[in-house]
Amino acid sequence: MDPGTQPKNQKDVHRMAKIAALSGFPEWLPAERLVEQHVIDVFREVAELHGFSGIETRAVEPLEQLLRKGEIDKEVYVLRRLHAEGEDAPEQTGNDQSRTLGLHFDLTVPLARYVLEHQNDLAFPLRRFQIQKVWRGERPQDGRFREFYQADLDVIGQDTLPGHIEAEVATVMAEILDRLPMPQFTIHANTRRLSEGFFRSIGLEDQTAVLRSLDKLPKVGAEAVRELLLAETGATPEQAQACLDFAAIRTRDGSFAEQVRQLGGSGEMVEQGIAELTAVLERVEAAVPGVIMADLSIARGLDYYTGTVFETFVTGHESLGSICSGGRYDSLAVDNRHTYPGVGLSIGLSRLVSRLLSAGLARPSRKVPTCVLVSVADEEQRHLSDAVARSLRSRGIPCEVAPTAAKFGKQIRYADRRGIPFIWFPGGEGAADEVKDIRSGEQTAAEATVWEPPAEDRTVRVLAAEQTATP
Amino acid sequence: MDPGTQPKNQKDVHRMAKIAALSGFPEWLPAERLVEQHVIDVFREVAELHGFSGIETRAVEPLEQLLRKGEIDKEVYVLRRLHAEGEDAPEQTGNDQSRTLGLHFDLTVPLARYVLEHQNDLAFPLRRFQIQKVWRGERPQDGRFREFYQADLDVIGQDTLPGHIEAEVATVMAEILDRLPMPQFTIHANTRRLSEGFFRSIGLEDQTAVLRSLDKLPKVGAEAVRELLLAETGATPEQAQACLDFAAIRTRDGSFAEQVRQLGGSGEMVEQGIAELTAVLERVEAAVPGVIMADLSIARGLDYYTGTVFETFVTGHESLGSICSGGRYDSLAVDNRHTYPGVGLSIGLSRLVSRLLSAGLARPSRKVPTCVLVSVADEEQRHLSDAVARSLRSRGIPCEVAPTAAKFGKQIRYADRRGIPFIWFPGGEGAADEVKDIRSGEQTAAEATVWEPPAEDRTVRVLAAEQTATP
Repeated sequence: MDPGTQPKNQKDVHRMAKIAALSGFPEWLPAERLVEQHVIDVFREVAELHGFSGIETRAVEPLEQLLRKGEIDKEVYVLRRLHAEGEDAPEQTGNDQSRTLGLHFDLTVPLARYVLEHQNDLAFPLRRFQIQKVWRGERPQDGRFREFYQADLDVIGQDTLPGHIEAEVATVMAEILDRLPMPQFTIHANTRRLSEGFFRSIGLEDQTAVLRSLDKLPKVGAEAVRELLLAETGATPEQAQACLDFAAIRTRDGSFAEQVRQLGGSGEMVEQGIAELTAVLERVEAAVPGVIMADLSIARGLDYYTGTVFETFVTGHESLGSICSGGRYDSLAVDNRHTYPGVGLSIGLSRLVSRLLSAGLARPSRKVPTCVLVSVADEEQRHLSDAVARSLRSRGIPCEVAPTAAKFGKQIRYADRRGIPFIWFPGGEGAADEVKDIRSGEQTAAEATVWEPPAEDRTVRVLAAEQTATP
Repeated sequence: MDPGTQPKNQKDVHRMAKIAALSGFPEWLPAERLVEQHVIDVFREVAELHGFSGIETRAVEPLEQLLRKGEIDKEVYVLRRLHAEGEDAPEQTGNDQSRTLGLHFDLTVPLARYVLEHQNDLAFPLRRFQIQKVWRGERPQDGRFREFYQADLDVIGQDTLPGHIEAEVATVMAEILDRLPMPQFTIHANTRRLSEGFFRSIGLEDQTAVLRSLDKLPKVGAEAVRELLLAETGATPEQAQACLDFAAIRTRDGSFAEQVRQLGGSGEMVEQGIAELTAVLERVEAAVPGVIMADLSIARGLDYYTGTVFETFVTGHESLGSICSGGRYDSLAVDNRHTYPGVGLSIGLSRLVSRLLSAGLARPSRKVPTCVLVSVADEEQRHLSDAVARSLRSRGIPCEVAPTAAKFGKQIRYADRRGIPFIWFPGGEGAADEVKDIRSGEQTAAEATVWEPPAEDRTVRVLAAEQTATP
């Protein structure tokens, strides 16, 4: 911990032999990292504009907490200390799950634990965002990441949480996605009450089985799902057809309601679901027009979530799957005194950034933060270049001083190779300084205390490519 | 990875039983996290102003890479997949170090690997900063962290790296530290050539032994070190006295040089060391006056570093040890074609933030990002409050809408408890909106499209406490 007692040991480090990328552990070059950092910055900026507090939780949780999610346990990375000794080494006692630590595989389990642990010091409803890496021991051959960023947005209530929070969290996420350098996206919304109420009102009682069948729609298609509904849910051909018709409803406005009623949807639960979903559509539409849609085929997660559910797809990149999912859950955590309901949405950030980069959807305006390279005529004059750089930086202009007093042509190539737009030539001894725009070749006299680059060159921007064609 | 296939599972999460903090894994409350985030932001902003590129490396490295640093190996956390299966499970084959993965314990080993792995895609000299968590299996009872942020700044050359980079990296770090909300700090600098040259010029050949003895000065004091020098380095009483006198030299300016010469320091190596250290002092002093000092007692790291070395102490908080250390190393990494020399400094960021918080040295101006709570008169009118909030946010003013249409007194208390400075009352139906400063009680008419909070209230600021007394 203390850098003073742990100096960098170059003696041994350099003897490393073979270097190989690790499958499933993505790593970006500096220019690529600018895109990832931009996505993180946008997420944080919009979340803070909406009054969400950023938190981070420790990377590890006791294995017994992580294993509460039965299906996912095989993906957990468990830790042990290499040379653990007896009682100082809880991580080593692998059979005692209460003392074994694993790396978190999402940010929801840690949030539940954080809320319970710190409940007396938190104000509820808690508006929190969290952007951290998570780890899953996925098989690398599946093309999945083993280490990746998730970016979560949740509002957690103590005992109660108003229904309108569902629309609010979706709105914040829509604003975040809207500001990212990527193609058009659509947030698909459904609510548990609407699906459940509809199946019930047409006489189907085993709603879990119906949802499980409908969940297969994207993979196997309508006819195969019809067979499933007939075989596994006790549906009549008419009921199966109604379910398929219900799941085909996708509307940008509240007109889904009338279609549901025409298919025979009725009763208090259906009307409640309609009201909920309509409110979500209206509120998101008011904040970010054109991105939200009622999509009654969404079945996934309806066994977990207790209110609205969301999935998000990028036009032309549907193969990515949902880039942002979540919904309402009635108890993130409970203890003897309180229940903590929540609404949350989560972006698979690394996966999204990976696509933005590999498909050329976003790129930084230059590869490095530097706006100006201050050249050095000879090493004796380096202090002049330092002074210019200090002056520019004092006004927020990122710059660096040339590492050597090489020929100017070489210094210009140094800047050019990195995409640094300007090179500065200190005049010295009464001569005026000059600054050259490397792209246009234009060179003009300039004073370090007042010169300004064009606003778009000041700092690195991340630009969206022209939108790619829809397949 | 895909949020669509991994919905948040509230069913099981909430059954967690006992919740306990994990010793050595610090975790901040939202208001505390604002301080940590501020320190990270300042680091990044200054680094980018100097043209440093941010990178992140994966959290894991092959164990064989991590173990190159012999002394530290017992602190490594090793990973295994909980239900690893045969060939898909390299992490499990614990006896084969080439396939076992461990969590990185610093950012230097990963940087060396990153540079070698990506050398064909990087431009050298590489100016990189890196702020990431690292893990060490320290004994918790030692009060050390097992998970903590490090913030590193390095310039890496390919085969060559000019000497003036040592001063440059120290300058950037001085600017970072100077902008952090903390008491006065001092960067102590020494160079290997000066110490080595001095010991040699007074006739001591076993410089490693001399350095090892002098390194004990802060712990055991001058008399005990004198005994060590006599017993273990073959020094005469006069030589031992000269070493102690040398190690007592601390100057803010270049006057250390004359003191070294008066003690008998002479020869090319001593003069080279003097020139190096003088250049560092002058350049850092020019950029950030009053923070750098020649301190010839610094012996730690001189067996690792090959040029200037740095340690940094905070006035009144010397017990923290060095909060920022580093120096010049001639080979971060080598392969068949190239050697990569570097200059780097590293802040133990979590440890510093922990002290800033526990000693009350820094605090956020409020506990949440929210500047304005927009009140809700009744749920039917929530859309009016939403519209006000949208308008304020469009001009960068962080705000949130009250979660319920409770009595205004309760809504004011909601804001007050979080330190939100303003509450907004939408007028509705032709009546003017009003905004109240909760601290002064002053309430005025306002329009959401033009109203501005005082500049200091717009976003959360992190403030330094009055400087604490020097002990």
